[in-house]
Amino acid sequence: MKATVTVMLKNGVLDPQGAAVKSALLGMGFDGVQDVRQGKVITLDLADGTSQDDVTAMCEKLLANTVIESYSVDMG
Amino acid sequence: MKATVTVMLKNGVLDPQGAAVKSALLGMGFDGVQDVRQGKVITLDLADGTSQDDVTAMCEKLLANTVIESYSVDMG
Repeated sequence: MKATVTVMLKNGVLDPQGAAVKSALLGMGFDGVQDVRQGKVITLDLADGTSQDDVTAMCEKLLANTVIESYSVDMG
Repeated sequence: MKATVTVMLKNGVLDPQGAAVKSALLGMGFDGVQDVRQGKVITLDLADGTSQDDVTAMCEKLLANTVIESYSVDMG
């Protein structure tokens, strides 16, 4: 089975990567870009029987820094 | 309007970040982890009227290195 974890910086936390991408896109002439934020996506191949609670524990303990990052888990 | 771009290393391309995450999760006792791959997700706030073709152009020109990375675009 598969799980996909998406980790984004929380709103209000400065995102220098996103700011750099926005600046680059505007510099390339993509004038419609108003805001960019960049996060990470982690795809996990898991043994059958691994629960969403297990994946949530992985997020809390390792995958996300919950002080500044939020995460979402999508199973299957 | 919003667009979400997900960029992952292509299959067969070595993913040291994913390998490190897998090793850490196994070391923490999450025995069900079989494979991990890590990519990036970029959320774009766009002016109305920006088309999916525009976002695809952003991916081709900046957001993804299409030699080693694949991307998907999700509008809305």
